Amino acid sequence: MFGKIALEEAWGIRENFKDYDVATLVPKGIIGPDLVANLLDIHGTRLQQMDENGVDMMVLSLSSPGPQGATEPKEAEDLARLANDRLSVEVSRTPSRFAALASLSMHDPVQAGEELRRCMTELTGFYQSAGADRNTMLFYDSPAYDPFWRVASELDCPVYLHPREPTPLIYSQMWAGRPHLAYAALGHAHRVSMHLLGIVTSGVLDRFPKLKLVVGHMGEHIPFDLYRIDHKLNRARFPDMGMSKERLVRDYFGTQLFVTTSGNFSTPALLCAMQELGAGAVLFSIDYPFESIPNGCVWFDEHVPISGKDLVDIGRNNALGVFTRLTGWPHALERLKPIECGVGGLGQKRGVEGEVEYGLYNKSWGKREKRGVVAEEEGPAA
Amino acid sequence: MFGKIALEEAWGIRENFKDYDVATLVPKGIIGPDLVANLLDIHGTRLQQMDENGVDMMVLSLSSPGPQGATEPKEAEDLARLANDRLSVEVSRTPSRFAALASLSMHDPVQAGEELRRCMTELTGFYQSAGADRNTMLFYDSPAYDPFWRVASELDCPVYLHPREPTPLIYSQMWAGRPHLAYAALGHAHRVSMHLLGIVTSGVLDRFPKLKLVVGHMGEHIPFDLYRIDHKLNRARFPDMGMSKERLVRDYFGTQLFVTTSGNFSTPALLCAMQELGAGAVLFSIDYPFESIPNGCVWFDEHVPISGKDLVDIGRNNALGVFTRLTGWPHALERLKPIECGVGGLGQKRGVEGEVEYGLYNKSWGKREKRGVVAEEEGPAA
Amino acid sequence: MFGKIALEEAWGIRENFKDYDVATLVPKGIIGPDLVANLLDIHGTRLQQMDENGVDMMVLSLSSPGPQGATEPKEAEDLARLANDRLSVEVSRTPSRFAALASLSMHDPVQAGEELRRCMTELTGFYQSAGADRNTMLFYDSPAYDPFWRVASELDCPVYLHPREPTPLIYSQMWAGRPHLAYAALGHAHRVSMHLLGIVTSGVLDRFPKLKLVVGHMGEHIPFDLYRIDHKLNRARFPDMGMSKERLVRDYFGTQLFVTTSGNFSTPALLCAMQELGAGAVLFSIDYPFESIPNGCVWFDEHVPISGKDLVDIGRNNALGVFTRLTGWPHALERLKPIECGVGGLGQKRGVEGEVEYGLYNKSWGKREKRGVVAEEEGPAA
Amino acid sequence: MFGKIALEEAWGIRENFKDYDVATLVPKGIIGPDLVANLLDIHGTRLQQMDENGVDMMVLSLSSPGPQGATEPKEAEDLARLANDRLSVEVSRTPSRFAALASLSMHDPVQAGEELRRCMTELTGFYQSAGADRNTMLFYDSPAYDPFWRVASELDCPVYLHPREPTPLIYSQMWAGRPHLAYAALGHAHRVSMHLLGIVTSGVLDRFPKLKLVVGHMGEHIPFDLYRIDHKLNRARFPDMGMSKERLVRDYFGTQLFVTTSGNFSTPALLCAMQELGAGAVLFSIDYPFESIPNGCVWFDEHVPISGKDLVDIGRNNALGVFTRLTGWPHALERLKPIECGVGGLGQKRGVEGEVEYGLYNKSWGKREKRGVVAEEEGPAA
Repeated sequence: MFGKIALEEAWGIRENFKDYDVATLVPKGIIGPDLVANLLDIHGTRLQQMDENGVDMMVLSLSSPGPQGATEPKEAEDLARLANDRLSVEVSRTPSRFAALASLSMHDPVQAGEELRRCMTELTGFYQSAGADRNTMLFYDSPAYDPFWRVASELDCPVYLHPREPTPLIYSQMWAGRPHLAYAALGHAHRVSMHLLGIVTSGVLDRFPKLKLVVGHMGEHIPFDLYRIDHKLNRARFPDMGMSKERLVRDYFGTQLFVTTSGNFSTPALLCAMQELGAGAVLFSIDYPFESIPNGCVWFDEHVPISGKDLVDIGRNNALGVFTRLTGWPHALERLKPIECGVGGLGQKRGVEGEVEYGLYNKSWGKREKRGVVAEEEGPAA
Repeated sequence: MFGKIALEEAWGIRENFKDYDVATLVPKGIIGPDLVANLLDIHGTRLQQMDENGVDMMVLSLSSPGPQGATEPKEAEDLARLANDRLSVEVSRTPSRFAALASLSMHDPVQAGEELRRCMTELTGFYQSAGADRNTMLFYDSPAYDPFWRVASELDCPVYLHPREPTPLIYSQMWAGRPHLAYAALGHAHRVSMHLLGIVTSGVLDRFPKLKLVVGHMGEHIPFDLYRIDHKLNRARFPDMGMSKERLVRDYFGTQLFVTTSGNFSTPALLCAMQELGAGAVLFSIDYPFESIPNGCVWFDEHVPISGKDLVDIGRNNALGVFTRLTGWPHALERLKPIECGVGGLGQKRGVEGEVEYGLYNKSWGKREKRGVVAEEEGPAA
Repeated sequence: MFGKIALEEAWGIRENFKDYDVATLVPKGIIGPDLVANLLDIHGTRLQQMDENGVDMMVLSLSSPGPQGATEPKEAEDLARLANDRLSVEVSRTPSRFAALASLSMHDPVQAGEELRRCMTELTGFYQSAGADRNTMLFYDSPAYDPFWRVASELDCPVYLHPREPTPLIYSQMWAGRPHLAYAALGHAHRVSMHLLGIVTSGVLDRFPKLKLVVGHMGEHIPFDLYRIDHKLNRARFPDMGMSKERLVRDYFGTQLFVTTSGNFSTPALLCAMQELGAGAVLFSIDYPFESIPNGCVWFDEHVPISGKDLVDIGRNNALGVFTRLTGWPHALERLKPIECGVGGLGQKRGVEGEVEYGLYNKSWGKREKRGVVAEEEGPAA
Repeated sequence: MFGKIALEEAWGIRENFKDYDVATLVPKGIIGPDLVANLLDIHGTRLQQMDENGVDMMVLSLSSPGPQGATEPKEAEDLARLANDRLSVEVSRTPSRFAALASLSMHDPVQAGEELRRCMTELTGFYQSAGADRNTMLFYDSPAYDPFWRVASELDCPVYLHPREPTPLIYSQMWAGRPHLAYAALGHAHRVSMHLLGIVTSGVLDRFPKLKLVVGHMGEHIPFDLYRIDHKLNRARFPDMGMSKERLVRDYFGTQLFVTTSGNFSTPALLCAMQELGAGAVLFSIDYPFESIPNGCVWFDEHVPISGKDLVDIGRNNALGVFTRLTGWPHALERLKPIECGVGGLGQKRGVEGEVEYGLYNKSWGKREKRGVVAEEEGPAA
């Protein structure tokens, strides 16, 4: 599919990696020789791979730890401002291919709102570290953060909740013996799902009915447990829960809650999410450079058993309804029909050059394609 | 779910059953004591059951055989005109609850267009019988029918292709030994799928890009075979096939082709259709009185594992995009949100009165409901 | 996946194409230069492609028209005997890689049983042509065929019902205007589903509870309509239907009825069939040379979102439970575990040489594989 | 469906609730008047509801907190011994309807093994609390627990990992602001999935290849994230991870890992689990009295769109292959066919008395059943 929009795509500045072991982010031997180089790069390898894989637009955001890692408000706010300024320069070079999520310090909700207003664009974030021992987590589901949510709602800025590492204390209690589970394999989803549901059940979405929240990784396993979540959030049992008594968590999906496919390229998970949430609540994303651009795109373009309409909505059009600034200056993206994305018809197999017969998973009739064999002249795979 | 719209709902006039053995339509002992009474009735039992089952609107059409059963053009045209006049009177009594599909003789495409213009509303039909021995089938995928398709397209009248019995000759050749397979169990789907695909592959939808076709029974098994159909309709093999060389059959679904759930209350089939066609190509229907209103509605309201958004689109909103007259005078139906249809929230379980806990398939915590036991005072189940 | 068994794989002898336009079988430009050569070949290109695609065993059967095309009993019986003798010689050359379905004339059920007894192996077939005008179809759901079913049951010979062209009369009535729909795209499935359901509903499976029937193309769209089929085969309505009053059509799947994936490489259709029939009723097949071996295998090995256990059962083990002779002399095939088939683990991506990371749809991290580009030295794709 | 086996069913003794606020377990107003009474009861209401809902066997286990809540080894061991003795007396009264999972103190792996040997039956458990402040969690994925796993493996005792509350420290850090999320709605699944994957990735299942682990709630959301889990557990990145380098987490499901449906009566989740794990890895369970027996059974018997074979395997037969003692003295349960469980055929709608027409979700043709209205005079439902 051509014209894809990817939403949870990381970018970095060297200042962000001070006092931070990037190795905790990078699976050795699977990502290219230098994750940091891939994070710093925008118009080089990244743009080339976008061209090769039908990715029209990448919405960039500052990689972890970002301002959320800074326990000092001043330090966090300075890092956010620096990153936002740099990113705005980069995006303005090619606004037709790149957009940005602002980074914010979340120590002070009012200041966060001001910075958001200054950036006039969307925001990403997760719990805010605080305290000298880094063990204090500031969560956004407390009333203290209403000033921030109010600005996000007024500005129609979707909030993308991104995972980050646990506090040293939580790590020592729960993950020390199993570090391989502490991050992307499991821990990230645990922490984001807890915080997202905390925000929803506290009533933030009811107080700000125009506010939109987005999470990645096919919903941090919430769609799979959604029956149980709604069933157990029993009003008779929890009379003090802030969420509207007239609604279920599921009722917010597609209008105020959205999930992306970033890093969870699983067809059964996608089908489950679509059954529970509807195609309108799902947005395509990759999670570059922690995931491979061609890998995520090959899965989506060639392996997903959904209709062309749903493919193009999830791959592109839904994003324009959630991140509405993408349709205005300077990005000016438009909704596309399947045929305009090379989906359907005989002329184009999804995202692949050259006419092929419909129904050929392997274009050659007689030879099995040697998948993963990249011709020498293309150079070794990173 | 409240506010459902049902599209393939039969109605009859006595003149329609002349020389016709209604018994071939009725499964004895399963439908109420008198199928004919149910066919003739509109504002009695039918409306009451609509009220009890959250059906807001029924789009009525003349039951088989209709004008398609008349081999004489004059006879067919008179029957169509008579039925259309009578139906228009009935609908005008309660236009907020009933609409109608015109019946047409299809002997003469020009005359059919004129009658359609006179009715200014949608049409139902299937192959037209002709010939003294009733063995001549007039199919609508021949260029001779373009005048008719042109009018349907100009008037934005969707065409609902409805099954009917085989010719005596075909019956004797293929079905004589197995009459139970000749109709709804299998034969109907064979004949309608053949004719629908004949129309599509002949290029009618390309010549009339605003034309919309609808079939029932979850698509007459086309969605299940859609890969094979598109794969085998090989342009290299069939250079003379009329359909656009740039399109596949699947590319017409959701814009010019639509399926309804009438009489195929199967969850695996619905999920397959949604994966292949997308939720936007599926419309709810029952097939009353050949199917039970509460049975079709209980399946759709309580058993279908899809999101509230998809439920309300399939149950109601999609129909308003296809049968656009339903949004104008005198019907004036509007698109509804899930909560307006009692979908989602705690206040209403789908289509069921009274507050219930989310997640209770069986409202009583301790007693298993006696399904199918209707209290005496409610009168015996039909 | 290694170790796959394919069941509906065509083979031919020149005598079979006498008076037969092979062009009606071959999609020009999509199959290799010579369909007939592919049909006649067993140990050449066919075996090489089996090696390249993890196909352990092909069960061969005589291509259409076969003896069913011969209206004269003697001619049909001679052709069957000739084909069976030739095929037995071929299979005996490499019994570890090839097995055969006997071809039978079905004019005389007793003679068919004798030939079956002589071959001591399974059978393929469909309606038997008879009559000088080729318009007489002999169907096997009449009591006259019980002697044949008895032998098949006694010998534990599964019967594979294979499609064939319509009679000239049916063709002229239903397909003349749309020849592209008359065969694999639609007509084949119509005819086989009608005949299979005729046999089931006539009670053959009840009279011969050890008898097994197999159909291809994911069940000739029966799984999609199974709810409607069982719902409409209403005992109150059809008191004379031969099938046991205690059973539904669905109850025979997995024990007496089986479907194969031949030529319907659709993931939504596979998921629907598994939901309706269970994984135990589905068997992998290709339909070579009318379908591409690598295409069918790439779909099954790389695109199907099912568990490793189900993959290996459908790909291999189920076939050994249905075609039990494959486990005995001279074939001696054994059930395999996923790991033995290269399914699961890190050491082997399904059917692909070399270690890969789990989860890479595109092995190269940075380069999108150019699908369908086969290196020159491999020769042009057929 | 008749003959169901339920595996995660709680039972209690008063001694278990000392110093324990049962209110944290009970959703007020939704469970019967007295949760404690339901926990203490076995042969009263529980058995009656089993009869009414086609539950043949309940495998009982001691409710939380159980010995895992006791920080003092001696106290924990005494409680376990007391509960096991009492339960064994109860089970021996009706071994055809009840079996038991032993409770064990997990302070001392050797002692736990001895108690397990004494009980000669299966075990349930989760992390062991220790430390005066109850903030020490003993996890079973440390090598220190190998003596215990060895005994469980030798005795063929599946280990059922059951959720429990977080430690006071974790609670204060993560859940204090959102208590409604801390338990069944979200927190339980987080903790159990972390511990289960810790055991698997530490290599316990490789060191004890006969050992079987079971978790409830459809797999504590592991199936939904299984692609991501396997993809991120990258051997190049985590060279020290104990799990076999030749296997993925998914490869253990169906042979050493199993999930039950307890408390997650979600059709999309079940379909996702079956696609990822296969039907053979899924076992029916309810989670009584924290869930309603009729509610879980109505969902499974009437709402699940899977084949009769899968229904009976998941509902009963799979359990006999995992909990093998159920097939021996004194329980002597046997595998059943669908028809023996009232699945399929016309004579019995799943789990419902009386002949019904196939395909009627609402037995009455004309009246919509008032679901959830249980008339007083009906008394206990038959």
